[in-house]
Amino acid sequence: MQNSLHIVLYEPEIPQNTGNISRTCAAVGAHLHLIEPLGFELTDAKCKRAGLDYWQYLSVSRYPNWAAFEQQHRKKGSFYFFTTKGRKVYTEPDYQGDVYIIFGKETGGLPEELLLAHPDECVRLPMLDGIRSLNLSNSVAVAAYEVLRHWNFTDLKLAGELTRFRWM
Amino acid sequence: MQNSLHIVLYEPEIPQNTGNISRTCAAVGAHLHLIEPLGFELTDAKCKRAGLDYWQYLSVSRYPNWAAFEQQHRKKGSFYFFTTKGRKVYTEPDYQGDVYIIFGKETGGLPEELLLAHPDECVRLPMLDGIRSLNLSNSVAVAAYEVLRHWNFTDLKLAGELTRFRWM
Repeated sequence: MQNSLHIVLYEPEIPQNTGNISRTCAAVGAHLHLIEPLGFELTDAKCKRAGLDYWQYLSVSRYPNWAAFEQQHRKKGSFYFFTTKGRKVYTEPDYQGDVYIIFGKETGGLPEELLLAHPDECVRLPMLDGIRSLNLSNSVAVAAYEVLRHWNFTDLKLAGELTRFRWM
Repeated sequence: MQNSLHIVLYEPEIPQNTGNISRTCAAVGAHLHLIEPLGFELTDAKCKRAGLDYWQYLSVSRYPNWAAFEQQHRKKGSFYFFTTKGRKVYTEPDYQGDVYIIFGKETGGLPEELLLAHPDECVRLPMLDGIRSLNLSNSVAVAAYEVLRHWNFTDLKLAGELTRFRWM
């Protein structure tokens, strides 16, 4: 089966985060899906500065709302909802095929109605008790690299070179 | 053996990144080590905004230079240098004990002299060829969670609860 990673942002609010996430998408070849309303325009300087060099490498789609996104993608792959409220650790799923990792807005996360409708697909990044959450772009990066690890980082470059010296 | 995570930033330049990283440190109970010069003051509004609620939870140390840091910590645990130039994937090491994950400055990474002196401890996050790198705070989060995964997320909260509903 061909594996493919999709990063879905539900109503993102902060342009720097979406900029950083676009950079992650470009770095690993993930598709970016943005569910409106957005708290900024993609042309926003803060968004561009965080991801500017990378937009050219990016596959990005926008949807007017969750229903429009769901209708178009539900049957294509597996959805995973990243939320501190999840009862399963994000390393547990057997990620395969078209994998959609879905993240809520910075201030409020994903709507609980949506989580309640997908209890077995809600996953959590472990944290100390009493801490609110990670920064959104950090959560996305951790999740994306976990899925890619399950796929043995296929198609990604595994080693680099020094520029002023050479490795022995 | 008691495991403990240390996040080391070598001459960080951008306050929002260190702010976000401080938030990650607080979320997982990691120690933050900052090697000067910093490109900002810790009281910088941009730094505080990215991590503001979290400084109170944070264990942070500063050093005037790499030598001062190394002298104090070299014998306490294992150092891992995160760099796109590494020849080993970051998931490969057997992280144990006091683990120091070390990251270079946003614009130039870690000095190549330092990498060359520790060839077997240089590790890379796989990426597509031709892409420069991830955002610094994103790289730190991915690395930190990989080490914590090796430790089965001991002491972290693995599951959450809804606030307006209850899981069945």
